[in-house]
Amino acid sequence: MASPEPQTSVRSAPRSRRSRESQSGTGSAPAYVTRTIPYYAFLDEEALARIETQAFRLLERTGIEFRDDPHALSLWQAAGAEISGTRVRTAPELIRNLLATAPAEFTQVARNPARSVRIGGLHQVFAPVYGSPFVRDLEEGRRYGTLNDFHRLVKLTHQLSPLHHSGFVTCEPCDIPVSKRHLDMLLAHMTLTDKPHLGAITEKSRAEDSVAMARLLHGPEIFDNNCVILGNVNTNSPLLVDKVVTQAAEVYCGAGQGLIAVPFILSGAMGPVTTAAAISQALAEALIVGAYTQIVRPGAPFILGNFLSSMNLRSGAPTFGMPEPLMSNLAIGQLARRLKLPLRCGGALTASKVADFQAAAESADSMLSTVLGGANYVLHSAGWLEGGLATGYEKLVLDADRLGAYEVMLRGFGTDADQLGESAYLDVEPGGHFLGSAHTLAHYSNAFYEASLSDSNSLEQWEEQGSQDAQRRAYARWNQLLKDYEPPPIDIARRDALEDYVARRKATLPDAWY
Amino acid sequence: MASPEPQTSVRSAPRSRRSRESQSGTGSAPAYVTRTIPYYAFLDEEALARIETQAFRLLERTGIEFRDDPHALSLWQAAGAEISGTRVRTAPELIRNLLATAPAEFTQVARNPARSVRIGGLHQVFAPVYGSPFVRDLEEGRRYGTLNDFHRLVKLTHQLSPLHHSGFVTCEPCDIPVSKRHLDMLLAHMTLTDKPHLGAITEKSRAEDSVAMARLLHGPEIFDNNCVILGNVNTNSPLLVDKVVTQAAEVYCGAGQGLIAVPFILSGAMGPVTTAAAISQALAEALIVGAYTQIVRPGAPFILGNFLSSMNLRSGAPTFGMPEPLMSNLAIGQLARRLKLPLRCGGALTASKVADFQAAAESADSMLSTVLGGANYVLHSAGWLEGGLATGYEKLVLDADRLGAYEVMLRGFGTDADQLGESAYLDVEPGGHFLGSAHTLAHYSNAFYEASLSDSNSLEQWEEQGSQDAQRRAYARWNQLLKDYEPPPIDIARRDALEDYVARRKATLPDAWY
Repeated sequence: MASPEPQTSVRSAPRSRRSRESQSGTGSAPAYVTRTIPYYAFLDEEALARIETQAFRLLERTGIEFRDDPHALSLWQAAGAEISGTRVRTAPELIRNLLATAPAEFTQVARNPARSVRIGGLHQVFAPVYGSPFVRDLEEGRRYGTLNDFHRLVKLTHQLSPLHHSGFVTCEPCDIPVSKRHLDMLLAHMTLTDKPHLGAITEKSRAEDSVAMARLLHGPEIFDNNCVILGNVNTNSPLLVDKVVTQAAEVYCGAGQGLIAVPFILSGAMGPVTTAAAISQALAEALIVGAYTQIVRPGAPFILGNFLSSMNLRSGAPTFGMPEPLMSNLAIGQLARRLKLPLRCGGALTASKVADFQAAAESADSMLSTVLGGANYVLHSAGWLEGGLATGYEKLVLDADRLGAYEVMLRGFGTDADQLGESAYLDVEPGGHFLGSAHTLAHYSNAFYEASLSDSNSLEQWEEQGSQDAQRRAYARWNQLLKDYEPPPIDIARRDALEDYVARRKATLPDAWY
Repeated sequence: MASPEPQTSVRSAPRSRRSRESQSGTGSAPAYVTRTIPYYAFLDEEALARIETQAFRLLERTGIEFRDDPHALSLWQAAGAEISGTRVRTAPELIRNLLATAPAEFTQVARNPARSVRIGGLHQVFAPVYGSPFVRDLEEGRRYGTLNDFHRLVKLTHQLSPLHHSGFVTCEPCDIPVSKRHLDMLLAHMTLTDKPHLGAITEKSRAEDSVAMARLLHGPEIFDNNCVILGNVNTNSPLLVDKVVTQAAEVYCGAGQGLIAVPFILSGAMGPVTTAAAISQALAEALIVGAYTQIVRPGAPFILGNFLSSMNLRSGAPTFGMPEPLMSNLAIGQLARRLKLPLRCGGALTASKVADFQAAAESADSMLSTVLGGANYVLHSAGWLEGGLATGYEKLVLDADRLGAYEVMLRGFGTDADQLGESAYLDVEPGGHFLGSAHTLAHYSNAFYEASLSDSNSLEQWEEQGSQDAQRRAYARWNQLLKDYEPPPIDIARRDALEDYVARRKATLPDAWY
């Protein structure tokens, strides 16, 4: 690849970018949020130490199964773990020593440097829903996702400034063979947006395609010296890691790229039913994968993941936005900071089938606790419906509107003399009003978060405009956004190289639907 | 009043109470919540001190107007304030000295002692919306509230266990003359529920009726030695206190009862546009009223109130659930604790006209920040729609369902060996499942909050049941609750005395509509 860096070879488009961002629900469009408000000390140090100790005890005594990947077992053996069969038992010091090389924070470089995100520390990055086979919108209802849906969702994510990251499987493009769809998804993320994104993990060759295409997109110089792509993998809870995880670590971290390891635990099924125990197990599972990434490549970016859901006590169905996972969002944030690891957790989660009151209440509580907990990278922060089975078009733009509010909250408010309004009473008497006062005028334009989809009109105005509820307004908004979409500029040579790669790979792959 | 205490003279009805509570969204029905999770230190001590200093500076330099009540001015003069015209200026030490007699926490005694609530300290009490002229439900839409609506809302509040307190103007009974409706409202709160409630404040004689009827209900012994009723008053922001406030203080606190003083500030209109300044002004206004209650009667229960709303920057309309008021909920909680005063703030607030996604998102963020902020008494915690103009029947039961979740969160989770699941792995191997394990069975029944109105069924089940969104399910639920309603037992002699009081007062009052 001798072509110039994409960021220097293309014309900049500041005007069109500004106009997009002004539609996106916030006045400004930071590439990510850097928190200035303090963390919430939800659990005390003793409780945190007990959970951490239990996690290390699980790793040492019960151990973790590493299945279907003898290479992983041999790496563990060489690192000093105790191996019996496929069981890997590790002393706390081994895990701590291995994790010492994992960066506390790192930058994921986007092809547009202004979109690069900092993950870890005080930084918080929001990405859309991941993995839904279905999509839903207000007119067409719920159906399997297609590549057309996928393209539209990537475009919308590009336009919604509170979403800093493009994620990956924003919906499953179910009309494309499973063996090939990762190529189409990668091409879309690389060309329809200039926000950073994740790569495929479901099979080793797909991870390799992701890394190879990222190398083409960014060029070898940037690729070799930066994290430009990450894979997101789940452990097989309880306490089991399969080759999808170890091979993804090998491919991504082996190439100097990043990995997110997320135990997805339905408490009472894949983990104990009590919150403290479920958090402990999740921590153990994520830590062992984190340690493994550092065996593969010391210094590789690693994100500790956590995804706990509760259960309907009558049916056993997973529930979302309930108080137990809310609390776990706050607790795992504290645990990740103790361990100096970036954290992925939470999201705007709900069991609701549509973007109704239930969806919003569950999503808001789930996401506000995620935000307060300090999660550094948040998948599912917009668009999640039906326990993750469906991506909602209306839900995507509605959630993004609330993410903008959380960004404002994460920046806090000032208490200097000007913010305290010491001068505000010079021209306002008791019983008067502040509407035209100098202090108000000086601060008015950026005093309040402006939500795009919250209607604050009078009932009469609202009725005159058709008595549209939030879903109906959201439907109009995402349709308008798609009409306004403009692709971000891209270096033509690199785009051609990516398209060529996809065409060549597709030609060699059979159409497989599994 | 020689009749026996109502609690001893009536048959107890444990069976019917249990059956009501099992419908109410939580397994248990505490009379109030006692928080075991820590507070969130949102602002640091320096910022808190700056806000507090600015509040005291406003009281000392600009001062507060006390209008239409010369008696209040003479009380202030006697207490040592500087009076010029109707302006009252007070030194910080005067305010601090006066507030030193206000209790940090107190019990509001309910006619059923099991329903008495503890207000202040670690305790948190939830009450429904207050003051809406309109009501809305899914079938009949939005219309003026009537006494029939009012009765139904009091009954529903009685049945919803996450609501600990009956509030007062759950909707305005607009079919009853303004001069008389407080009597009907009081009678309803005193007979249709045995939860505690507030009294009228709009005119001195109405406050006096409230106190007189509370004395009849509780009997003189209990009345004279306890707080059984409180008035909730608003200052006339900015920096103005009218006789509604001072006379309510005289009547309620003069009789040893309680007062809540709430600056209702639309930032940028009735207060400065910056958050820190609006909080400072609100604090100043609430503190001066609190100090006044202690002049009237040292030791009178006083609740420091706060209600800040933000503004739509284009229309000037108030907005709710936005990040600025969310942050103020957290900050004012810290300020109230520094001053050792019980706090009323927040609520499940929204500008939405219907119980849609907007309503739920704004309400959830508003209420979760209220809960985390530690508000001790929360009006508007259920049923608020349309910026407080309408009480929603569906919204009432939907909000209550989420309040139950917050109760669980406020109790936190344990991290002892059992909660950590140390024994859980004795009968579960890596790759196994916990569904039938001994640890799961031991904890299953109370492991998770059970929301009444959150649907976690599969799409197929949900469609089979009519594809009902949350509003539709809520409509069915409140109608069922009203069918199941049973009045709590009441001493007949006291009920007769109350009815007699109302009849006599109504006979002397003209029908006035203002």
